[in-house]
Amino acid sequence: MTLIVLNAIALGFETSPSVMAVVGEELRIFDRFVITIFCVEIGLRIAARGLRFFLDPWGIFDFTIVAITLAPAADSLLVLRALRVLRVLRVVSAIPRLRRVVGALLHAVPGVAAIGVLLLLIFYVYAVITTNLFGPAFPAWFGTIGDSMFSLFQIMTLESWSMGIVRPILQQYSWAWIVFVSFIVISSFTVLNLFIAIVIDSMQTMHAEERTAASMRAENETAESDSVLRELRSLRKEFAEFRDAHRK
Amino acid sequence: MTLIVLNAIALGFETSPSVMAVVGEELRIFDRFVITIFCVEIGLRIAARGLRFFLDPWGIFDFTIVAITLAPAADSLLVLRALRVLRVLRVVSAIPRLRRVVGALLHAVPGVAAIGVLLLLIFYVYAVITTNLFGPAFPAWFGTIGDSMFSLFQIMTLESWSMGIVRPILQQYSWAWIVFVSFIVISSFTVLNLFIAIVIDSMQTMHAEERTAASMRAENETAESDSVLRELRSLRKEFAEFRDAHRK
Amino acid sequence: MTLIVLNAIALGFETSPSVMAVVGEELRIFDRFVITIFCVEIGLRIAARGLRFFLDPWGIFDFTIVAITLAPAADSLLVLRALRVLRVLRVVSAIPRLRRVVGALLHAVPGVAAIGVLLLLIFYVYAVITTNLFGPAFPAWFGTIGDSMFSLFQIMTLESWSMGIVRPILQQYSWAWIVFVSFIVISSFTVLNLFIAIVIDSMQTMHAEERTAASMRAENETAESDSVLRELRSLRKEFAEFRDAHRK
Amino acid sequence: MTLIVLNAIALGFETSPSVMAVVGEELRIFDRFVITIFCVEIGLRIAARGLRFFLDPWGIFDFTIVAITLAPAADSLLVLRALRVLRVLRVVSAIPRLRRVVGALLHAVPGVAAIGVLLLLIFYVYAVITTNLFGPAFPAWFGTIGDSMFSLFQIMTLESWSMGIVRPILQQYSWAWIVFVSFIVISSFTVLNLFIAIVIDSMQTMHAEERTAASMRAENETAESDSVLRELRSLRKEFAEFRDAHRK
Repeated sequence: MTLIVLNAIALGFETSPSVMAVVGEELRIFDRFVITIFCVEIGLRIAARGLRFFLDPWGIFDFTIVAITLAPAADSLLVLRALRVLRVLRVVSAIPRLRRVVGALLHAVPGVAAIGVLLLLIFYVYAVITTNLFGPAFPAWFGTIGDSMFSLFQIMTLESWSMGIVRPILQQYSWAWIVFVSFIVISSFTVLNLFIAIVIDSMQTMHAEERTAASMRAENETAESDSVLRELRSLRKEFAEFRDAHRK
Repeated sequence: MTLIVLNAIALGFETSPSVMAVVGEELRIFDRFVITIFCVEIGLRIAARGLRFFLDPWGIFDFTIVAITLAPAADSLLVLRALRVLRVLRVVSAIPRLRRVVGALLHAVPGVAAIGVLLLLIFYVYAVITTNLFGPAFPAWFGTIGDSMFSLFQIMTLESWSMGIVRPILQQYSWAWIVFVSFIVISSFTVLNLFIAIVIDSMQTMHAEERTAASMRAENETAESDSVLRELRSLRKEFAEFRDAHRK
Repeated sequence: MTLIVLNAIALGFETSPSVMAVVGEELRIFDRFVITIFCVEIGLRIAARGLRFFLDPWGIFDFTIVAITLAPAADSLLVLRALRVLRVLRVVSAIPRLRRVVGALLHAVPGVAAIGVLLLLIFYVYAVITTNLFGPAFPAWFGTIGDSMFSLFQIMTLESWSMGIVRPILQQYSWAWIVFVSFIVISSFTVLNLFIAIVIDSMQTMHAEERTAASMRAENETAESDSVLRELRSLRKEFAEFRDAHRK
Repeated sequence: MTLIVLNAIALGFETSPSVMAVVGEELRIFDRFVITIFCVEIGLRIAARGLRFFLDPWGIFDFTIVAITLAPAADSLLVLRALRVLRVLRVVSAIPRLRRVVGALLHAVPGVAAIGVLLLLIFYVYAVITTNLFGPAFPAWFGTIGDSMFSLFQIMTLESWSMGIVRPILQQYSWAWIVFVSFIVISSFTVLNLFIAIVIDSMQTMHAEERTAASMRAENETAESDSVLRELRSLRKEFAEFRDAHRK
């Protein structure tokens, strides 16, 4: 834990050239030391738990992070150095509280997968439409499907959508607002529903325990009510027998 | 299904001129093939179900999409090619899960229609006011009711509202902030209430089943309580009869 | 009703100079006709209900709107013409459904008044601070308390806050980000709580009826349980009497 | 109370040079008078309650605000004058209603601390990555960890993220969108969950009393049901005794 935090701070210092000039060598040695520790730790855990280690999602998470760090620096030193900071994320798997928070965050994901697919579909349809319609005239924004996707994402976040993108287009195609206003309304509405789905998922988890308590209470009541009825029926039967015996 | 997805990918490829140069003819033939399949499919479904086909909203949805594809290319090849991608939306009517999601999204719409009308009214009132007040000085933004509506939509999304639109106006009319700040506050508040109405609608759907369960439970309890009372009254009556008979 | 809608459309047309050139005189006559009708209607309602008319908030609302229309054109023809469109809002008081929606919107207001006061306080404190700190260097944004208020409102809506306002200031005062980032976090948090208060107010209204139903059900159960108990005690007493009588 | 409000208004006037030229001396005297009153008041409260004064968070709050006011003007007259307006915040501790609102706002904070830590972690990881990757090419935005943090905060608020920052970067590093789009999605999702946690915290407070009422009702019912059962068992026992006695 302490090691991860120290390593995180060291990685922060490494971004400053003036610090690197003074203690760069020390930081590099410390970095190699941390990598060695991590590798040994992962190695021990795999040795201890065997293949079951890879059944635990957090195990896979730790393994991937350390693996990224060890990836050969061949392709690009820059990207490698940048990704090394992902090691800081090991702090998440180290603190149980944070693990639970991340687990809760991801818990909502499967429930909203269908809305996510719908959102992707809306993006794709609008990307093809805008590429066809505005691609030739505005290649910087809508030149390819990829460009259109990025521009539509920007428009969905409402960043400079009007002044930056739509007003220039309007000067050439005065009907273009239909495309963009409909996209904003539809995508906002879908994202809103994504949010609502997540909120309701969280609430149902919260209500679930309340409901369990309520149904337990209800069962208790029913059980008691049942015993009243049973008691009463026995009494009536006994009384009937007594009466019949008495008459004779 | 597979056909729709393949068609979607093909339509994506068609936006790239370099791909079109190589396999453009094949894509065009594939496109015509897909259209034929769709027409035959819709035709068969209408033949099978007759006029009832048009009572199902998803039937009308499919029919409209295919009809748009078949619309004569007379008006504009560009727009037509763009709208062809709407065929991808057939994937929504083909996957039951997505149909249900869209159904749930649209379920909230009637409930919030009144707030929508109110929002339109607010837009219209502010559009007339801003056109009258700022139209002559800023024709690009508030020249006509339509321009004002678009600018107000932009202001509602908070995009460049201050730096782009209101600050230039303030230099000429120093009191103009009253109009725009009031518009932002009122429209945000109304949109917020639109959102809340949708959230509450979703919650009521969720609570509805809980409530049904609760009322069923309550009925069970009442029924049991009733039988206890009935049993008890019978016993008392029998006892009274026995006592009277005994006295004599 | 129809008259209000027609009048609204007419007011929309009046913003277009080309339409005014053709049928301007007719529109002006129609406008005067509508004003007369409105005055007569308000007059009749006051005559019919007397002073009680002014106890109904919607009566005051209608009266104010018509009064604004009649205000002498002395001060500014432009503003007057702009405010005339407020008459369209009479459609709200004419349609019961919209009246209820507006009522529901305003219902939440008193409950959140305290948070609103807090928000105002935060604005005022930050306005004085920014006017003192940045007023001399950036008079266009923070010259007076009023300018600062407007700039802070813009920053709260997150419009161009960084590129437009904070980055230029940072070049002169490198510690200025503390002021603005803290303002954004605090004001967002307060506005979020304003929203939550409104949502919870709406939910409590929704829950209130559920609770009423639940407590009625609970009362029914209690009543039934009471009658079981009473019945049982009578039976026991009767039996005791019978036994005592029998013994003798 | 009145004094605080008057002082707030006076501090507002002090920002205006034209007002200061006329009544500046009077305002300065009034300011010193208010400070004296505040010091005396705090002194009396400490004298009356002793060290317990510092156990009350609002006491510490008042003390800090007055202490800031008294801090020597040595470091910077400008900052001091700006912070003097914090005295207005004493109005919060003076009005019980506002105290309760602030208390409710802060009530949610501990519950969301874990999500806040996660958000900080995400910020730090992305800040190191972007400083490493884009720092050399764009020193104004990502030159140091601090600059990157500010830029990422700006991107999280979606202000000019695309037009202002990401599009220029994309022209040099065409794969940079992965970094920023992933950051926007992850940070938005985390902030959304922060909001949901606060909403659910507020709701649980609201539900808590409902639940208390429900469980009290349930206890009442159970108690009544118990007494029915007890009554019934006594009756049955008495009857059995009577029957046995009679048989003999």
